[in-house]
Amino acid sequence: MLALSCARGCSGLRTALRLHALRSVSGLTAAQIDEEVAKLLELKARLGGDEGKHQFVLKTPKGTRDYNPKQMAIREKVFSTITRCFKRHGAETIDTPVFELKETLTGKYGEDSKLIYDLKDQGGELLSLRYDLTVPFARYLAMNKITNIKRYHIAKVYRRDNPAMTRGRYREFYQCDFDIAGQYDAMIPDAECLKIVHEILSELELGDFRIKVNDRRILDGMFAVCGVPDDKFRTICSTVDKLDKMSWDDVKKEIVNEKGLSEEAADQIGSYVGLHGGMDLAERLLLDPRLSQSKQACAGLSDIKLLFSYLQLFQVTDKVEFDLSLARGLDYYTGVIYEAVLTQAGAAPAFSDAQNGSEEGVSVGSVAGGGRYDGLVGMFDPKGRKVPCVGVSIGIERIFSIMEQKAEASAEKVRTTEVQVLVASAQKNLLEERLRLVTELWNAGIKAEVMYKKNPKLLSQLQLCEETGIPLVAILGEQELKDGVVKLRVVATREEVDINRSDLIAEIKKRTSEA
Amino acid sequence: MLALSCARGCSGLRTALRLHALRSVSGLTAAQIDEEVAKLLELKARLGGDEGKHQFVLKTPKGTRDYNPKQMAIREKVFSTITRCFKRHGAETIDTPVFELKETLTGKYGEDSKLIYDLKDQGGELLSLRYDLTVPFARYLAMNKITNIKRYHIAKVYRRDNPAMTRGRYREFYQCDFDIAGQYDAMIPDAECLKIVHEILSELELGDFRIKVNDRRILDGMFAVCGVPDDKFRTICSTVDKLDKMSWDDVKKEIVNEKGLSEEAADQIGSYVGLHGGMDLAERLLLDPRLSQSKQACAGLSDIKLLFSYLQLFQVTDKVEFDLSLARGLDYYTGVIYEAVLTQAGAAPAFSDAQNGSEEGVSVGSVAGGGRYDGLVGMFDPKGRKVPCVGVSIGIERIFSIMEQKAEASAEKVRTTEVQVLVASAQKNLLEERLRLVTELWNAGIKAEVMYKKNPKLLSQLQLCEETGIPLVAILGEQELKDGVVKLRVVATREEVDINRSDLIAEIKKRTSEA
Repeated sequence: MLALSCARGCSGLRTALRLHALRSVSGLTAAQIDEEVAKLLELKARLGGDEGKHQFVLKTPKGTRDYNPKQMAIREKVFSTITRCFKRHGAETIDTPVFELKETLTGKYGEDSKLIYDLKDQGGELLSLRYDLTVPFARYLAMNKITNIKRYHIAKVYRRDNPAMTRGRYREFYQCDFDIAGQYDAMIPDAECLKIVHEILSELELGDFRIKVNDRRILDGMFAVCGVPDDKFRTICSTVDKLDKMSWDDVKKEIVNEKGLSEEAADQIGSYVGLHGGMDLAERLLLDPRLSQSKQACAGLSDIKLLFSYLQLFQVTDKVEFDLSLARGLDYYTGVIYEAVLTQAGAAPAFSDAQNGSEEGVSVGSVAGGGRYDGLVGMFDPKGRKVPCVGVSIGIERIFSIMEQKAEASAEKVRTTEVQVLVASAQKNLLEERLRLVTELWNAGIKAEVMYKKNPKLLSQLQLCEETGIPLVAILGEQELKDGVVKLRVVATREEVDINRSDLIAEIKKRTSEA
Repeated sequence: MLALSCARGCSGLRTALRLHALRSVSGLTAAQIDEEVAKLLELKARLGGDEGKHQFVLKTPKGTRDYNPKQMAIREKVFSTITRCFKRHGAETIDTPVFELKETLTGKYGEDSKLIYDLKDQGGELLSLRYDLTVPFARYLAMNKITNIKRYHIAKVYRRDNPAMTRGRYREFYQCDFDIAGQYDAMIPDAECLKIVHEILSELELGDFRIKVNDRRILDGMFAVCGVPDDKFRTICSTVDKLDKMSWDDVKKEIVNEKGLSEEAADQIGSYVGLHGGMDLAERLLLDPRLSQSKQACAGLSDIKLLFSYLQLFQVTDKVEFDLSLARGLDYYTGVIYEAVLTQAGAAPAFSDAQNGSEEGVSVGSVAGGGRYDGLVGMFDPKGRKVPCVGVSIGIERIFSIMEQKAEASAEKVRTTEVQVLVASAQKNLLEERLRLVTELWNAGIKAEVMYKKNPKLLSQLQLCEETGIPLVAILGEQELKDGVVKLRVVATREEVDINRSDLIAEIKKRTSEA
């Protein structure tokens, strides 16, 4: 016990010895030692924190941001466009907690699982922040034994990714999800999801866009006929998914060197993932001597054909493209998958740019994605009962960053309040009268303010209106009070008119409903 | 080292020895040992979790809930009432991340700090889930050097409390905060916060309510003149705060036995905390021989007087009561504090019930609370610059639970979608025609649905409308297609009329705007 007692006093040695002791006692793994180290560092940070008060680091956590009132005004406009579309298509909405039992998320995200935020064990259940809204939705369906629903859910999700905030990539970000659960005739709900993406991206006026479509069964069939072993489908899929960020040469290198596929198999994959087109491509590939040997691929290709026939009726084929390079990383997809990208200069890189690896510009990447996941609900059901699902997720942060840039570039002033009238006074000692009048207005449902000063100057009251865009001022003075009137001033024109106090509410409502 | 090596093999002994070793090495405290124990249990749980796949516990984390579409409909109605009120009073809105740097929250919540959720250290910053919206707001103001703003923020906060979910107490819950930051003339913004609580609770029609008001300076002055040592103000305050849940006798016991105050001092406190009234009570206490010796108390009492004079102008004194037992637990309040409770039978316990400790009924406790916190922003500012703030937080979950009970009790059907028309067919093989028509409607901004089946029966299409409250059905058949018309059916009256296809959109808009 000599080493243990002499350890007190020397902190570096102490830590080392403590870890040594820990290891001896319980046979800890390297990961557990890392955890111990982190714990000690946290302890140190805590002690340090107490020493010097007032030494706060004034920031939000890495990869997160605040929204100021102007940004909120833009955000609410985007949400309202999206919500209106979801409601137009008959969706209900639900909400789930921001964290789930850790085991609920386990085994759903493949290689991305390492990006999940865990909560500290403070006694009780092990919890993780939600990584998307899809897995909580599936948990909700299984838990409540719901076999069909069309729902939307707009909420924040969390990923410990490397943030690239200028391009709208955050660790905390909103997803706007629309999903259709239920056993229905093939491809009708799938087509509606694409129609929804088309409607939303059109209404938001973000410039031109393209929706890439593929099918997991086509990818799996393609891997099979190219000689990829079954147990490598998912990991090769993850690598192929990087084609929007990496050139084929780099993807191929990863497939061969890291994932251990033969050069030949990789080249065969390469000959497929370069293909893109419309319904005609699906028809052509159904005749492809190699691919047509895969039942899976044929099922996928037939569904792509059917999908395109519905997309024609929905009038959205102008933007939709069947693209064999689209893979999407998440484990849970089983059928159709899709992803929308903005294609206009300054918005997202063209495919060729990505090929050259030169996507460091103002790219925002994909702004929507989704697909069919028929097996996910069954993973939660005690009896494995399946509920087929298809859905789409709109990635709002990237859209925000474009709209914010637009708003900054334009001269248009964004109002952050909706105040219709400022109750002002021209003379001193009228605070009580101002409070009395503003109460009348509030009680009548009018959006109104007073300055929180006993004796504000008229000029500063008028300036407040100019700055914040308040259109009307209701001015009180001794004379007005004596006459039972209020002077109503239009800020834009400086026109002033006396209104009988009893007519004031009606007059304000009339004037502000015109505007 | 004998004990250490023989420890392998026996897990109970192993744990004990490991803890012993830990203690020897670094002199751990009891709390730290608790943490170690929790860690080992987590490890055990994790190992257990891997054994049996598919053995999911289908639940949301303790103290949390999902919202189904009906509950969401109620929730959105409540939010819309609250938001409308905040906007009527000219507030902007902001948003902050769901987690903050751990140090941002440290030292802000007094004894409640133990209820903060920490995130696991996965490398990088130490993070905690926000405990309220006030501290993030103060951090936001300091970080952006904002010296005045009127903002609202509606978002979820997290507390590892013992949930009582039937009474609307959760670990994840919404707060709807309205705050006014800035150097203004005394009590005007404070009075507006109370006006807002009054407006919201009136509009939500939750039955009668009362708003209790007090001032931290009065409490501190009271503690001082009752002989409480300075360093015990906050902890005694926390105990007095329990008066809404515990009888005075129990509170007194805690003050004397746990907090170590003399019986006499406790009795003196008891003589004050039983008092409640209006402006007259403030006037009376300003003349109280003991309390008037405290400058602090006098400043608080004068402000209460001023506050009540503004509340009279705002027409809200009917519900507001000056109550010396109101303490509020949080550390950061510096002046006026307030709390709203529902007082109707079945809603919240009357004061006398709380005194008897019999609050196990259908009580929902306080539904709003807040106060003045002039020092909080300064805690974040590198130079300690203060920004005076006052605000109020509406506790939505408790309000929801009442409104949900109401909705369940009433026969009224809550619609969870806004669909105006179902596009249906009377014969087979008309899927394409239905998709074509629903596209026309969507493109015209009409909320419309089709059933996702190739050949649904007309009866099941009509049933869907009955069940979900869709008011109109647009029916297509061979004859209608030939005639260039659509049969429009009113679900409620079963009335049917043929409409020219070119007039359909206008007709639907006309009929649904009437409803």
